[in-house]
Amino acid sequence: MTLTHLDEHGRARMVDVGQKDDTQREAVARGCIWMKPETLALIQEGGISKGDVLAVAQVAGIMAAKRTHELIPMCHPLLLTHVSLTFEPHPADPPDGLAVIDISATVRTTGKTGVEMEALTAVSVAGLTIYDMCKAVDRAMQLDAIRLARKSGGKSGEIVLE
Amino acid sequence: MTLTHLDEHGRARMVDVGQKDDTQREAVARGCIWMKPETLALIQEGGISKGDVLAVAQVAGIMAAKRTHELIPMCHPLLLTHVSLTFEPHPADPPDGLAVIDISATVRTTGKTGVEMEALTAVSVAGLTIYDMCKAVDRAMQLDAIRLARKSGGKSGEIVLE
Amino acid sequence: MTLTHLDEHGRARMVDVGQKDDTQREAVARGCIWMKPETLALIQEGGISKGDVLAVAQVAGIMAAKRTHELIPMCHPLLLTHVSLTFEPHPADPPDGLAVIDISATVRTTGKTGVEMEALTAVSVAGLTIYDMCKAVDRAMQLDAIRLARKSGGKSGEIVLE
Amino acid sequence: MTLTHLDEHGRARMVDVGQKDDTQREAVARGCIWMKPETLALIQEGGISKGDVLAVAQVAGIMAAKRTHELIPMCHPLLLTHVSLTFEPHPADPPDGLAVIDISATVRTTGKTGVEMEALTAVSVAGLTIYDMCKAVDRAMQLDAIRLARKSGGKSGEIVLE
Amino acid sequence: MTLTHLDEHGRARMVDVGQKDDTQREAVARGCIWMKPETLALIQEGGISKGDVLAVAQVAGIMAAKRTHELIPMCHPLLLTHVSLTFEPHPADPPDGLAVIDISATVRTTGKTGVEMEALTAVSVAGLTIYDMCKAVDRAMQLDAIRLARKSGGKSGEIVLE
Amino acid sequence: MTLTHLDEHGRARMVDVGQKDDTQREAVARGCIWMKPETLALIQEGGISKGDVLAVAQVAGIMAAKRTHELIPMCHPLLLTHVSLTFEPHPADPPDGLAVIDISATVRTTGKTGVEMEALTAVSVAGLTIYDMCKAVDRAMQLDAIRLARKSGGKSGEIVLE
Repeated sequence: MTLTHLDEHGRARMVDVGQKDDTQREAVARGCIWMKPETLALIQEGGISKGDVLAVAQVAGIMAAKRTHELIPMCHPLLLTHVSLTFEPHPADPPDGLAVIDISATVRTTGKTGVEMEALTAVSVAGLTIYDMCKAVDRAMQLDAIRLARKSGGKSGEIVLE
Repeated sequence: MTLTHLDEHGRARMVDVGQKDDTQREAVARGCIWMKPETLALIQEGGISKGDVLAVAQVAGIMAAKRTHELIPMCHPLLLTHVSLTFEPHPADPPDGLAVIDISATVRTTGKTGVEMEALTAVSVAGLTIYDMCKAVDRAMQLDAIRLARKSGGKSGEIVLE
Repeated sequence: MTLTHLDEHGRARMVDVGQKDDTQREAVARGCIWMKPETLALIQEGGISKGDVLAVAQVAGIMAAKRTHELIPMCHPLLLTHVSLTFEPHPADPPDGLAVIDISATVRTTGKTGVEMEALTAVSVAGLTIYDMCKAVDRAMQLDAIRLARKSGGKSGEIVLE
Repeated sequence: MTLTHLDEHGRARMVDVGQKDDTQREAVARGCIWMKPETLALIQEGGISKGDVLAVAQVAGIMAAKRTHELIPMCHPLLLTHVSLTFEPHPADPPDGLAVIDISATVRTTGKTGVEMEALTAVSVAGLTIYDMCKAVDRAMQLDAIRLARKSGGKSGEIVLE
Repeated sequence: MTLTHLDEHGRARMVDVGQKDDTQREAVARGCIWMKPETLALIQEGGISKGDVLAVAQVAGIMAAKRTHELIPMCHPLLLTHVSLTFEPHPADPPDGLAVIDISATVRTTGKTGVEMEALTAVSVAGLTIYDMCKAVDRAMQLDAIRLARKSGGKSGEIVLE
Repeated sequence: MTLTHLDEHGRARMVDVGQKDDTQREAVARGCIWMKPETLALIQEGGISKGDVLAVAQVAGIMAAKRTHELIPMCHPLLLTHVSLTFEPHPADPPDGLAVIDISATVRTTGKTGVEMEALTAVSVAGLTIYDMCKAVDRAMQLDAIRLARKSGGKSGEIVLE
């Protein structure tokens, strides 16, 4: 078992994917952001501004997915053919009294390598954007459970982790 | 209590910080990434390659901090005067048998607004980079507990959240 | 009368603003996008999706303002302290039967040079984003009248062009 | 008639083009910038500096075309195979006594979606660059009539709008 | 003999490669950086920090290769399938008593045009990064002999320049 | 003598410059590119296209200077107040019969740290752009002698290396 991003001398490299096939690939990543119930209420309710925090987070997540290879050093550039995000708010979570928004991102490409990193980056940046837009009222928000949910396409086929 | 990134019509805007003072500001953010003990062993041990995964993650986190305002739509551009990251590996965590690497980022600036988002972005991208470099051996790694630990400078002074 | 972005040999350069004062500066730019009345109706009405085209355009305009110095070769980098955009839809314009959305951007900085280009770039990219999101139903949309409306700050003081 | 960039919940997404064919695609966009006759004279005449404003605008337009997917949130990344711009100056336009430079951009790709946005972005940024380089002598310049002239390739075939 | 990046009017353009075949292409570029022997000693030796300067330079070179088309105006965007760099330190070079690190970059793609510029950019930015990290102790370091070593793929086949 | 970009554990960091003064700083870097005499003739002569290769290289160098902190991992972001480049062609260099273009870049800022890296990056990218635009006729061009010529401002004052 070896780390493919390191060469025989232990130095980082961008793995050679030139021999891989161009296949349709998809990845779904998930994560969530915990917040005070009042913070979620501000995001969800509030007259005209309804939904705007999540609208900005969605745009940020989609744009970040396209720039993943600029952020993650060993990531290959890919021509993404689809990116979408969904947000599922849960008003109250009894044990600790916190509200949470579940974030999910789906990314697709036709290419030589998978889009896990693009989906994970979309979730992370969408979550950070929610933090940014609400931090004036709730500094203790926390991003959690950012993970790959499933991927398909390429040599390893369908993989479901959740 | 209102969301300052939304204007009176509920539309997103970049808050006006023109009247704020240029003060020295610092933020510390933390997070962690869970992995199989074998994955951590590969990162930590392994002859020449010792530490290289973390060296790449560190560079990625520092570079991402500088691009925070390109990723987070309502973030102000800032002249960062210092960025550093530390990684603290914990080989085994009994309840679920997983290893973990704690990630911490410290960012400083002299400017009109704080650097929380820069520190949180550094932690997130460093964590994503670890995922990327190890995903061939461990797809189930998970980023967790990405949060602001403390901040200082500006009108609100020293704030400690941990 | 000379073009300050060209040196004595006629070559492009980034003008030296090192001796200018750091003052509060503001610029307002305007423009508009013409479209079929049905296109505007789709943007404005439509149940849940109400306003989302303009929400995306607004985020795009704000983010583009921050990257102006990367796009316009001789522009100086600036620390923007505020960016906002407004959209004013006019359902029908009798002579040619077209609807129009007026776009306005306000940008502020404390710095050595003005933010006209940032405001103009915000308007342009917001307009292009509206085009992109509606082009499947109306390829003949047209951006028009992108111009500086007013600026203040710096040696030239308040200038009103409209 | 629906806006394809919005999902069934009215949220923005990057449309899925994964099933589209890779075909040769071309788009031509046009626009213009109005200015005082003296401004055009400065651009056109002037000894050694002849043409340099337009040379810079041309480079800016080509470089911006390549970054369209970073600026326009729902745009797909594409491998552009050709970008060119032309500028056609018209010294005097009687009714209002203004000079004008017509700008045209041609962009080609082999890909799954069209290059209208890339051509429109090239025209816009080239025009903004002319504004930037001449604004010290003419703040009232105006960009106008930025529109798609024609496109070809893909399912919709040849479309001529002018 | 003509410069293909200039059109019939002598203006710059991005050459049309739409008719070229997608073939596997590789380029190798080389360069070096001269420094005082003490500087090389600091890079090579030094306990825990062993190799970190070169680790950072390697990441910088790989990331820069991916952004070549953003830096070099007429470069086509390409989907790089592999990037790697090697560093070969030579402790002492008698005639002038300087040490040197040879830098080599290998880049591969499957695409319509070659990756010479990506390999040359990787070498240059890796060298600049070494300069940056050591400039506090040795301002007189010098980058030299940045050149294409060999390329293969495409119509011109294998070309060896060294 | 230590490498300031490495912390006490030998890990890379962005050095803390928060305590440094904002002073006017300037750096001049130089380099050159060797080529066949016929290549230089094509760049210099040739009717309408006169000078366009160097015009593109100049724009590329200026734009790259502004993005130095995105390319060089440990570089601080800075607000550049001036960037200019000059090119000095030397038609023939007897010993090896090669022509050469000397490249020089001057960068200024008012800030907490110097602009050496920005000047060196401008020279490098300008040279790479010349290579790119002429490589179809001369693959053996070589960039050489990229070095800091002088710098001023900050604690170390005026330093002349040439």
